[in-house]
Amino acid sequence: MSAPPFDRTIRVGLLGCGVVGSEVLRLLTEQADEITARVGAPVLVAAVAVRSPHNYPAVDPSLLTTDSAALAADPTIDVVIEVMGGLEPARELLLTALNRGAGVVTANKALLAAHGPELYEAADASGANLYFEAAVAGAIPLIRPIRESLAGDRISRIMGIVNGTTNYILSAMDASGDSYDDALAEATRLGYAEADPTADVEGFDAASKAAILASLAFHTRVSVDDVHREGISQVSAAVIAAADEIGCTVKLLAICERVSDGSGERISARVHPVMLPRTHPLASVNGAYNAVYVEAEAAGKLMFYGPGAGGAPTASAVMGDLVTVARNKLVGGRGPRESAYADLPLQPIGDVPTMYHISMDVDDRAGVLAQVAKCFADHGVSISTVRQQGTGNDATLVVVTHTGVDSALAATVNELGEMTAVRKVNSVMRVANAE
Amino acid sequence: MSAPPFDRTIRVGLLGCGVVGSEVLRLLTEQADEITARVGAPVLVAAVAVRSPHNYPAVDPSLLTTDSAALAADPTIDVVIEVMGGLEPARELLLTALNRGAGVVTANKALLAAHGPELYEAADASGANLYFEAAVAGAIPLIRPIRESLAGDRISRIMGIVNGTTNYILSAMDASGDSYDDALAEATRLGYAEADPTADVEGFDAASKAAILASLAFHTRVSVDDVHREGISQVSAAVIAAADEIGCTVKLLAICERVSDGSGERISARVHPVMLPRTHPLASVNGAYNAVYVEAEAAGKLMFYGPGAGGAPTASAVMGDLVTVARNKLVGGRGPRESAYADLPLQPIGDVPTMYHISMDVDDRAGVLAQVAKCFADHGVSISTVRQQGTGNDATLVVVTHTGVDSALAATVNELGEMTAVRKVNSVMRVANAE
Repeated sequence: MSAPPFDRTIRVGLLGCGVVGSEVLRLLTEQADEITARVGAPVLVAAVAVRSPHNYPAVDPSLLTTDSAALAADPTIDVVIEVMGGLEPARELLLTALNRGAGVVTANKALLAAHGPELYEAADASGANLYFEAAVAGAIPLIRPIRESLAGDRISRIMGIVNGTTNYILSAMDASGDSYDDALAEATRLGYAEADPTADVEGFDAASKAAILASLAFHTRVSVDDVHREGISQVSAAVIAAADEIGCTVKLLAICERVSDGSGERISARVHPVMLPRTHPLASVNGAYNAVYVEAEAAGKLMFYGPGAGGAPTASAVMGDLVTVARNKLVGGRGPRESAYADLPLQPIGDVPTMYHISMDVDDRAGVLAQVAKCFADHGVSISTVRQQGTGNDATLVVVTHTGVDSALAATVNELGEMTAVRKVNSVMRVANAE
Repeated sequence: MSAPPFDRTIRVGLLGCGVVGSEVLRLLTEQADEITARVGAPVLVAAVAVRSPHNYPAVDPSLLTTDSAALAADPTIDVVIEVMGGLEPARELLLTALNRGAGVVTANKALLAAHGPELYEAADASGANLYFEAAVAGAIPLIRPIRESLAGDRISRIMGIVNGTTNYILSAMDASGDSYDDALAEATRLGYAEADPTADVEGFDAASKAAILASLAFHTRVSVDDVHREGISQVSAAVIAAADEIGCTVKLLAICERVSDGSGERISARVHPVMLPRTHPLASVNGAYNAVYVEAEAAGKLMFYGPGAGGAPTASAVMGDLVTVARNKLVGGRGPRESAYADLPLQPIGDVPTMYHISMDVDDRAGVLAQVAKCFADHGVSISTVRQQGTGNDATLVVVTHTGVDSALAATVNELGEMTAVRKVNSVMRVANAE
């Protein structure tokens, strides 16, 4: 391809050069001609900020710098790509870049979920572009569809598998019957889980993504602290087996809902494991894949599926944003701003309609079932099915409830735990509708 | 919500007010406050052009006009939404609008697939926005992901169920064993097929969508005439049953591929029914739903799923485009232009690697199988499985081939049809890989 003459180039600064950053560098190099043609000007890497330059022998040494602050402030850099992660100094660096009008592309879900409004405000003040497709569900185009394609519709619900590590672990437990610890060890060995898996297995990562999705879908500021969060470390092989008995598999879901109840219109954002009927399309999403269901009033039910993490897929999302921001730089346009006009109140987890699956060891004697049933009734919780397993001292009672509010169910479980006839509450897990 | 003061309004003209147009009007009215907040200015319908105003008692009479040319030319109209369909006068009207710099949102796949470059050129010359999310797969965000989210990646393949009518018919045949005629009659009765179903069942609609997708994915002008097209009217209940016997269902797929063979890099765009293994994710997409698989080098495999047609879903896609175009009007930006720099040559259908499923009635006597096998071998086509059903005069031979080029397979089938030992070639259908 012969290069046409260009008035200018788009100069890119990269903050961080790990798994994602190195893939971005590779794609920018290998597809240089194509990116140039798509943007309408050459896109060149001007600087790469890292902590220890000697760790990056594959990168042109003249590009490497340890001075990330200087990179963010450099007026000759048109677009700053942030793939370093963490809250600080990423926040400060991106504010510097946005304040001077530089375009910003970031994959940093934790930063957006904690400090999104501050970043948006800086972008607004200077007219800068702020894009973050890679922050949720890796390569799956999800941010753009939600904040642009569905901008003329009213989103009612988003429900998704947005963390590959936990989905890998839960899929493995479901397929093999392995314990949580064994499945986690295998995920770590294969590189699906980090050495410290807390952010993934305790749901922090998914909660950040839920905050970002809820903010965009409901035009309301939702921070990670607004998201009710439960992880998967309490999911035992016994729970997986119990789910299987009622035709379910266990998935960690991020759920964002617009609800109308006695308190008017509110939104709910939560992350927790659920027993999901195997007939649900999300139930067959296995391994490290991500999938997100979006329901909108006019559009109906949409599903997006693909690799949710990994260097190359995440870099693909970063590159798509880079092309858009670079084009906007050339033609003077800009992407969508923060949209938080609706400012809907949050529904506390206690008000969320829920079905529970409860397994408990009980005394196997006359009257125990009546006591247990009365406990549910006292809290206004209706029972769907009861099943007693084993006999004598080893009796186990498995109860699946109808839908009640979460606080009533939680109170029921608390009281059950205090009943002398109930030796032990083995497990409690929410059950999702088939739909 | 109290209305903030706005410097200006965005005035919209609607060409056509059928199933989609009336839903666009409804959404613009019902969600007026929300659309205003999202755009940053009120979006008002200024005019609705229809052929017979008395047919639209629900529309404010002061908006209705029969003069579509005046609407397209009206300098006070910022955005023209075209949901009238057909090539003319839609083409001429949109050129008028684009030439004067008005934004255009269209759902017209046939127009884009036939005259896309002409529309793009008019948009380029005046700096106008041209958006068409609703033209492919209804409400499923697909155009924006392909031309924006994946703009920094290299798409290798798109494979999709993009026509709801044919998918409804094929799903019904697969589920019930019904004949094609019965399934079509039922689809017509339920409103899934039009009175004249030709555009759907003969693959014209899907071919237009394939042309649009291939153009965007491969940065190459692909018109509907470049797309190899076969419909489903020849798909019999016997073929569906034969597919089932090899673990497949029959789907009409639009396939766009980037291929590298002895002739260098080329692209293929085609629409035809295939026997698809039931393990393939697209195999379980039933009824009028659409789903599209996209494979990109860095992103990996993505799938998009949702309602592919219908007034409200299509209107959702139109509304998303309208919000984007209206925002661009306010801030002076513009959407992506045509990207056709790659200009890749087309791979003719004869060169496409294919597996065939062939069912034929043959004489049941010694030597026939040898003759048939020799015919395949003479054309360099390798046989994967052969199965003979029935005995005596009613013997049927079912052959599934390994992958060969389509022209060799077609030549084989031609010669089989002329062999005296072969009484009749019952059916010929391509078979897709499980992957």
